[in-house]
Amino acid sequence: MAENMFLYWGSGSIPCWKPMIVLEEKGFGGYKNKLITFSKKEHKGEDVMKLNPRGQVPTFKDGDIVVNESNAICDYLESTYKDKGTKLIPDDKAKRAKVLQRMHEANSNIQQKLLVDVIYYMWQTKEEDRKEEDVKKKMDALKEELNRWEGYLGETKAFLAGPEFSMADVYFYPYIAFAVRMGLELEKLPNLKAYFDKLSARPSLQATQPPHWKEEEPKNTPLKGVL
Amino acid sequence: MAENMFLYWGSGSIPCWKPMIVLEEKGFGGYKNKLITFSKKEHKGEDVMKLNPRGQVPTFKDGDIVVNESNAICDYLESTYKDKGTKLIPDDKAKRAKVLQRMHEANSNIQQKLLVDVIYYMWQTKEEDRKEEDVKKKMDALKEELNRWEGYLGETKAFLAGPEFSMADVYFYPYIAFAVRMGLELEKLPNLKAYFDKLSARPSLQATQPPHWKEEEPKNTPLKGVL
Repeated sequence: MAENMFLYWGSGSIPCWKPMIVLEEKGFGGYKNKLITFSKKEHKGEDVMKLNPRGQVPTFKDGDIVVNESNAICDYLESTYKDKGTKLIPDDKAKRAKVLQRMHEANSNIQQKLLVDVIYYMWQTKEEDRKEEDVKKKMDALKEELNRWEGYLGETKAFLAGPEFSMADVYFYPYIAFAVRMGLELEKLPNLKAYFDKLSARPSLQATQPPHWKEEEPKNTPLKGVL
Repeated sequence: MAENMFLYWGSGSIPCWKPMIVLEEKGFGGYKNKLITFSKKEHKGEDVMKLNPRGQVPTFKDGDIVVNESNAICDYLESTYKDKGTKLIPDDKAKRAKVLQRMHEANSNIQQKLLVDVIYYMWQTKEEDRKEEDVKKKMDALKEELNRWEGYLGETKAFLAGPEFSMADVYFYPYIAFAVRMGLELEKLPNLKAYFDKLSARPSLQATQPPHWKEEEPKNTPLKGVL
């Protein structure tokens, strides 16, 4: 099956990373793919645009079926190949409810409070244009959010939504890995630290670490000292 | 089953509206519920906080199972009650891929370009602080986005993801209804106009129109003249 799949992806893109983890977990590790270079605008190239007129990655094909939105690819792969590899969304309704809740909670809250409100803000706002009270508010909201997830992991003592790896971990792990790259020091959040270390050693996450992270140090680390 | 369900919701909240449409479509129209008033901070009340420590609506219970994220509730209801009422996510993998793609495309793009970049921006940025070129850029991006969906509807000639009402329509319709309330005149987008009129007459959408929309005119209409 993997030989009929094709993924266009970019290194370090969280929307790309999520379906790549699913592909590994479902046992499709040999899928065909092309790593595109954003700086060369390869995501606007003819081959991508033909399948994805928005000119974005991920762009994904499974035979004739094209799915391009990150969450849609994850859901498509899990629902189409339910019985292959790791089961990422449980059949039991209470367990499924918990997985769905944590998936979408990560997707909306962590994306907003970590990426948009803090990392992109610090990248895009010149130091002289930042208001101290705004920065403090954003950092406090991020700390509160991280503490919430620290608490969730304190309840499960394992993965995010229970004793098994699930789609909730697929949705959450890339954010926390990116936060660590951006300087977040997890020592004060022991559950998150143990979770991060355990997951970082998992084969699907080892196989999908953004290649440029191994080659280049980050240009800045706005999350250093936040906790 | 509906008698075991309970929803806390707010009038006009798109995250609340989506699961409310699903509840109607699945045949759970008689579910128990409480309309909370944001201005009285009822979403921070003890009854909500007990089920949803974030103090947000929607907050939803199905028996002992609590699910609070809007997209998670939609997915939970559809996957738990697959064979009840309207089938919102098809079994056929190609059809399902299309529905998932359009759901998440609406969720990320329309939310960003309509709500965040235009409506919230116009609400939150004083007129003297708006840069003309920024406003033009945001409005152009919104126009381009709406034209994209006009094109999708030109292909299907029916609902968003094909000949049947689906979860893609659940995710998309509330945005377009809100845009119309905010002054968007659909005359220049005939497919969207016909779609909006048809869906607005659908029982599940009639039953779930935000009650305060019937009582109050909007305070301002920033989308007037955009198209």
